Amino acid sequence: MRRVLFYDANIFTPLMGSAPSSGKKQGEVVVYERGALLSENGFISAVGATDDVLKKAGGLELDLEVDLGGACVIPGFVDPHTHICFAERREREFSMRLAGKPYLEILKAGGGILSSVDAVRRATEEDLYEITLENVYRALSLGTTTIEIKSGYGLDTESELKMLSVIGRIGRGTPLDVVATFMGGHAVPREYKENPDAFVDLLVKEMIPAVARQGIASFCDVFCEEGVFSLEQSRRILEAAKKAGFKLRIHADEVNDLGGAGLAAELKTHSAEHLLAAGISNLKAMAEAGVIANILPATAYSLKKPYAPVRKMIELAVPVALATDCNPGSCFTESMPFVFGLGVMNMDMTVEEALVATTLNAAWSVGMQEKVGSLEEGKQADFLVLDGETPAILAYHAGVSPVVDVYKKGVLVA
Amino acid sequence: MRRVLFYDANIFTPLMGSAPSSGKKQGEVVVYERGALLSENGFISAVGATDDVLKKAGGLELDLEVDLGGACVIPGFVDPHTHICFAERREREFSMRLAGKPYLEILKAGGGILSSVDAVRRATEEDLYEITLENVYRALSLGTTTIEIKSGYGLDTESELKMLSVIGRIGRGTPLDVVATFMGGHAVPREYKENPDAFVDLLVKEMIPAVARQGIASFCDVFCEEGVFSLEQSRRILEAAKKAGFKLRIHADEVNDLGGAGLAAELKTHSAEHLLAAGISNLKAMAEAGVIANILPATAYSLKKPYAPVRKMIELAVPVALATDCNPGSCFTESMPFVFGLGVMNMDMTVEEALVATTLNAAWSVGMQEKVGSLEEGKQADFLVLDGETPAILAYHAGVSPVVDVYKKGVLVA
Repeated sequence: MRRVLFYDANIFTPLMGSAPSSGKKQGEVVVYERGALLSENGFISAVGATDDVLKKAGGLELDLEVDLGGACVIPGFVDPHTHICFAERREREFSMRLAGKPYLEILKAGGGILSSVDAVRRATEEDLYEITLENVYRALSLGTTTIEIKSGYGLDTESELKMLSVIGRIGRGTPLDVVATFMGGHAVPREYKENPDAFVDLLVKEMIPAVARQGIASFCDVFCEEGVFSLEQSRRILEAAKKAGFKLRIHADEVNDLGGAGLAAELKTHSAEHLLAAGISNLKAMAEAGVIANILPATAYSLKKPYAPVRKMIELAVPVALATDCNPGSCFTESMPFVFGLGVMNMDMTVEEALVATTLNAAWSVGMQEKVGSLEEGKQADFLVLDGETPAILAYHAGVSPVVDVYKKGVLVA
Repeated sequence: MRRVLFYDANIFTPLMGSAPSSGKKQGEVVVYERGALLSENGFISAVGATDDVLKKAGGLELDLEVDLGGACVIPGFVDPHTHICFAERREREFSMRLAGKPYLEILKAGGGILSSVDAVRRATEEDLYEITLENVYRALSLGTTTIEIKSGYGLDTESELKMLSVIGRIGRGTPLDVVATFMGGHAVPREYKENPDAFVDLLVKEMIPAVARQGIASFCDVFCEEGVFSLEQSRRILEAAKKAGFKLRIHADEVNDLGGAGLAAELKTHSAEHLLAAGISNLKAMAEAGVIANILPATAYSLKKPYAPVRKMIELAVPVALATDCNPGSCFTESMPFVFGLGVMNMDMTVEEALVATTLNAAWSVGMQEKVGSLEEGKQADFLVLDGETPAILAYHAGVSPVVDVYKKGVLVA
């Protein structure tokens, strides 16, 4: 049994009691001033006021005692929405976009999501692993201890399985908890351009069963949007996935209100993503169904587009989580501190709301709320030491990560 | 003689030929693809096409050859406007501001610029040095190789001299080139609240001569703004400073158009700062006088305020530089990559304009253009190796610094 006592920490954490299912207002955070945390074999056996934790630790043999010197401690970030597994960056395309080149010309010049598909199809599994590993370690150094990673740049059975194999290896080969999402329904590949329904057939009849057979993804996601998958196609994909045992999420109403948020509520998906164009009644339905809104402010930043109406969502009691959306096209960032800052500065979230959104609500949205997302007894000792007095440092220290130490299961990993 | 050859670098740099004084449009950048750079005793003796540099290096004994593996290289950042020398952060005040607390209440709770003055007056020189050093090393790791640092949290002769002493020690004790600016005219201290003109007297008759005598600041700056120093008071301070041998800069028209930009043009200051409210005719006068506009986008970000009209300035041929404005109140960031990104994403600068703004124009604004700001023969070998193909990576990799290696005078320093 490896026992580590962390003491003299100002610990800020949401609690399961104010989790999305509680119906409470988002943003409840407790503070243990000059508190302590006892980790036993990587799990929290006590956390809170120092006296209470010492009582629990009294008589136990400790392997290590860590004086945190009054530093601010928060749960490790959970990044609940990424496409961080990709084979090539798209820096040149970004420059074309900045220069105002129309999207069609960018496509002609070999850009767009299908260029990422080409790159993944070309890449060996080894290369794909190396590139993803580098990105994921950058995320870890910025405080992400649990990460959702989607497939969706393969778009054929073999390449999707290759991506999911890499994503699985990332989970086994790094300290992070990795949640794998199958997203064969990310785009319609070139070979099915004239017949997208046939691609939906392939997804439903071949890819979803193949992924389910290998058991290498716990979620299924789909991009419900004009020009990608219609509401009906999305429903077909998600229902097939549900039958095959997947948990669900959906890219919904990013540009146009197709009713994706409503479908999310109807199917009680774990989360719905983007939601810039979602209508009020569907947001209300999401709130009632307990669907988490995964909001991606760095994508708005990187595309120079409006930010999602987060204040309205919180008012409507939709639980909000924040994610990087890390991907090579619309938003290349692994930084949850940056996303936290954007949430506070550009979407007017309170620091407490942003903390809940990047930890407990994010954990909830990837089905990991029993293990991570808050510092409570029985959960993993995943936490961050910040160079600041409170979590406000994540917005106050603009554009600079205040994450000093990253602990995963009680072990210093970055 | 220490000779280092750097080769296989994609070098992006502005040239002195397109500097602010040239009248050329901002944003001219040359690229040496797979180029090389020869550093002799910290100065560039050749840079450009590999063949040309090798011709120069042929026959010379080299101490080191560095293969940059095709990486992108740019000049070290020049941060031309900081208040990075301070004794205490103001994280709690930031939280109060976020929570919507009125400024007067924040002042009552001990916040505001005068709390920074209290902190500096209380601090020992040693403490002030340690805190500043930590901030400055963070800036260095983010690619800043030349930095302007202002006094202005002392506001009495002794405390201002203490700050300038610390700023001087930072210059001698770190790899960075430090440009010291005396800014006794940063605010009216409490003891002169009822009689600000008497404080201007003190500045003109005692502080400016004292600083000049010690020779520890090359610039003098003043905050020309309603409730701080009027246009006439600012003129008095700057004219006295000019007479005492200082170069000039001015915080102008940040909130209200007092005509500070016009005064800058009239006095031909090196730079004018902020300029959100500056009128067109005064901007035109600045362009004619060759005054650099030091623009501070991270301050807009941190205060949730509008960004300066940079596109209009560039159209009017005002040379634009970008700076962090690093300070404990309105904008706590040391990150020039973050500021670069904001310039491109939130102020619609081109990547090339932002590169010029963070290197050559910034050097010009602090009078260092003969030494730093571009990679040209005779200048210091101050440069950055980026994890990307082009300087666009500074915006494309959102919220994450792509600065891998920092070279100062040909030596790896971060």
